[in-house]
Amino acid sequence: MRRDSVWAREQFLRARAARLATVTPSGAPQLVPIVFAVVDDVLYTAVDAKPKNTTALARLANIGHEPRVSVLVDYYTDEWTQLWWARADGTAEVTDDLAAAVDALSRRYRQYRAMPPPGPVIRVQVDRWSGWSAATDGA
Amino acid sequence: MRRDSVWAREQFLRARAARLATVTPSGAPQLVPIVFAVVDDVLYTAVDAKPKNTTALARLANIGHEPRVSVLVDYYTDEWTQLWWARADGTAEVTDDLAAAVDALSRRYRQYRAMPPPGPVIRVQVDRWSGWSAATDGA
Repeated sequence: MRRDSVWAREQFLRARAARLATVTPSGAPQLVPIVFAVVDDVLYTAVDAKPKNTTALARLANIGHEPRVSVLVDYYTDEWTQLWWARADGTAEVTDDLAAAVDALSRRYRQYRAMPPPGPVIRVQVDRWSGWSAATDGA
Repeated sequence: MRRDSVWAREQFLRARAARLATVTPSGAPQLVPIVFAVVDDVLYTAVDAKPKNTTALARLANIGHEPRVSVLVDYYTDEWTQLWWARADGTAEVTDDLAAAVDALSRRYRQYRAMPPPGPVIRVQVDRWSGWSAATDGA
């Protein structure tokens, strides 16, 4: 059953990892796993922008070209009555204004407390939280 | 470290679920979880195309407009030295030629043995298997 935006956002608050889809300048989708933090209707994820990290750099270039992104958290089990997913569709920007993002990310991940993310941050203004679960109760 | 195509494909053979990114006609990414099967360099996933299942129908329309897709499997744990992901980038088509897909999907998922997927199938010709793992050994 379709879930509302409150339910969908709650799954993001609980989830530890998500997947980020961007679109390349040539129009193809690109997909990477991310760690993230949510503050109100903003989702932050950091980029470990090593010079040779071409995947990360591609992600930044993609967003510069097409700011619309999609982020998914989901749960899989072979018991399909328990499946669910939640999605955040929004508009991304790359920013070097790290304070809010690093604060939020550090609260969630001990690795970021030990070593704050060095690179730029992707800030997604979420326009739509949506979700679905196989269960029809409040699961 | 970057992993080769053989390693990446093997992660897909082991994984039970993945995420499919398509691009909408307006150029935005769309992201959904999928179950799937891999045969050689082809990845199959079925669509439960109920008339009201707008998410599924959008996916088909997206592929009709932009056949390039990206599919990701990944593993998350709070122990970041164990993270990995694998990706299949390819060209999708929607087909009603279900035999090979249903055979492959039914071998993987008991639900499809009990009830074969009713809708069309997305067939992805994988052009590139790629992957990464935090571990530097053969994990």
